[in-house]
Amino acid sequence: MSVTAPRGFRAAGVAAGIKADGARDVAVVINDGPSRAAAAVFTRNRVKAAPVLWSEQVAKGGRVRAVLLNSGGANACTGAPGFADAHTTAERTADALGDSAAEILVCSTGLIGERLPMPELLAGVDTSVAAAARDGGLDAADAIRTTDSVAKISFRRGDGYTVGGMAKGAGMLAPALATMLAVVTTDADLTAEQCDRLLRAATAASFDRIDADGCLSTNDTVVLMASGASGTTPDEEAFAALLAEVCDDLSRQMIADAEGATKSIAIEVVRAADEDDALEAARAVARNNLFKCAMYGEDPNWGRVLAAVGTTSAAFEPDQIDVAINGVWVCRKGGVGEDRSRVDLTGRDVTVTVDLSAGGASATVWTTDLTNEYVHENSAYSS
Amino acid sequence: MSVTAPRGFRAAGVAAGIKADGARDVAVVINDGPSRAAAAVFTRNRVKAAPVLWSEQVAKGGRVRAVLLNSGGANACTGAPGFADAHTTAERTADALGDSAAEILVCSTGLIGERLPMPELLAGVDTSVAAAARDGGLDAADAIRTTDSVAKISFRRGDGYTVGGMAKGAGMLAPALATMLAVVTTDADLTAEQCDRLLRAATAASFDRIDADGCLSTNDTVVLMASGASGTTPDEEAFAALLAEVCDDLSRQMIADAEGATKSIAIEVVRAADEDDALEAARAVARNNLFKCAMYGEDPNWGRVLAAVGTTSAAFEPDQIDVAINGVWVCRKGGVGEDRSRVDLTGRDVTVTVDLSAGGASATVWTTDLTNEYVHENSAYSS
Repeated sequence: MSVTAPRGFRAAGVAAGIKADGARDVAVVINDGPSRAAAAVFTRNRVKAAPVLWSEQVAKGGRVRAVLLNSGGANACTGAPGFADAHTTAERTADALGDSAAEILVCSTGLIGERLPMPELLAGVDTSVAAAARDGGLDAADAIRTTDSVAKISFRRGDGYTVGGMAKGAGMLAPALATMLAVVTTDADLTAEQCDRLLRAATAASFDRIDADGCLSTNDTVVLMASGASGTTPDEEAFAALLAEVCDDLSRQMIADAEGATKSIAIEVVRAADEDDALEAARAVARNNLFKCAMYGEDPNWGRVLAAVGTTSAAFEPDQIDVAINGVWVCRKGGVGEDRSRVDLTGRDVTVTVDLSAGGASATVWTTDLTNEYVHENSAYSS
Repeated sequence: MSVTAPRGFRAAGVAAGIKADGARDVAVVINDGPSRAAAAVFTRNRVKAAPVLWSEQVAKGGRVRAVLLNSGGANACTGAPGFADAHTTAERTADALGDSAAEILVCSTGLIGERLPMPELLAGVDTSVAAAARDGGLDAADAIRTTDSVAKISFRRGDGYTVGGMAKGAGMLAPALATMLAVVTTDADLTAEQCDRLLRAATAASFDRIDADGCLSTNDTVVLMASGASGTTPDEEAFAALLAEVCDDLSRQMIADAEGATKSIAIEVVRAADEDDALEAARAVARNNLFKCAMYGEDPNWGRVLAAVGTTSAAFEPDQIDVAINGVWVCRKGGVGEDRSRVDLTGRDVTVTVDLSAGGASATVWTTDLTNEYVHENSAYSS
């Protein structure tokens, strides 16, 4: 179902010959309306790939007819010629749809620093637009995979409308493929302003809270398109909750599929002074290589959790922090707590709870362990 | 020679039974004067080990008679009992010297979250003070090793005075041993105020610019003691240069000995708007796991360098950055530059030069690659 679960959308995923192995590598998601309200959020990296630079301009208009995505090449650090390639891709998609390039988003994922094979890509644009259909959501999700072992899709039914989505990307990423792309669709009737506000809120609480290796891609893009085909103007709060569920579901699928990872780790920070503090502390733990190695070794090394939290500016007293690993409070008041041998780390899912004893706010960041497989994926790969 | 190269200092390193393998684990460095001027800088981690909390108080007095150091246990996250242990250790050292505990620094390195074996440690204090001698510098440097494969020492002769030093710690560190300790001595005659100012400047340009895994220890301590035994009041600028050389030498030895590392990598950022920008950009590259994996794989993946620099707030234009790896300008103006196949990454030493084209400032940060051995050291180790 994926992006085609809501009415008003067609999609396709085709093999255009960009990937050497002949796998699907071009996807399109088309909004047939009646509305074209849309919004997008992009990487905060200041080195932005050409498709991001193009799509930022398109998204400002608040209307999107289609998103054209390719795997097998990031079109990043490719200068003015790379930007021209992104523009050409949008124009070709617009031509195929009899529409305007000003409403075509372009997303790319793959190696940085290489031009895309334009003849193959442009042929793929034609093929994918021609193939786009109401049942094409899964093929599209398949076509945007790089090292993802499975296609990532989600959908939820609301009161008279539906939200669907697809994503690619994961924590442990192959070289220079460190990109997260997500396309979320709905047949609810929303304004562009609503799309923007609701997508930013949902992204901040989902995609922004997975952090596999602290590396920020040049290509990250999350898009929301609203076709209005259901004829339903949703209750905003209910829609926001549904959108949050879909984004959270896609985020969790990325962590679960993180290449090279053997653990999916939730870092929960509770009783923080405010949410920013909770997030800063959770992210510091999620990015600490020593902690991540300990998780790989199934070692409940709470000292590394404290050492990571100690690098932040969050409000806490070092002698008031409690830390639980999978429910065992191994650290109490900044010192030794319950017997660490009681911690069971044999499963894939791990929860680390940090109690800052500083207030009533909380936040969770999802991460993975640091493994030999991660190092292998990101060093042995020939790029 | 090490810390006993300058006149006025005695040192020793003994095996007190803290380390299970019977290796040396207690060191002492004694300043016999006539001056006791001293200063110290400590970890910026807010979770500070007990010996750091103790020594911060001592250092405020600007006078240090001796530093007592142990490996085999960090005495971190041990609460009030751990602080009492640090205090007791200082008192015992003072007793052995017939002096005041208020002028005894204590340093520990090893596992976090465990109490030190005090009977062994206190016996070690007595033995080491009794053994302290003018030729004890190398034994002391040996006794503070944890996973360091070699003792790290340095000395330089100035105009009528000498600067000596020892250090332990490295980039790729065994679990919870992520600590850098350094003791620098001189027989120059300096005030405590000079010691403080000159040590901070030297540390900022050396120990603060090695960054192996971005993990900040709970125990980091750097001490400077001036005995005045040479009778020479040095030209401050000349002394600062000599001190910088010793600190830089010790820092480089740490990176060179980083366990699990196969590369010593200098990240040089040039033509930055100011030094802060240069440092921020260099550190972002040094901490980027994807870049560090690429170095391990001997892959001149400049896209990862740009992606890392792009996460900073340094002044630059993405289409104006040049990147060289071992002298080959693989990235020009943010895009493809010279042929990457010309980059030779087979040696241990790697230099990555990032030209921000934004001004006249520069800075270098030293780091290591991210390897399977690092993951192994930090996960398979039983703690």
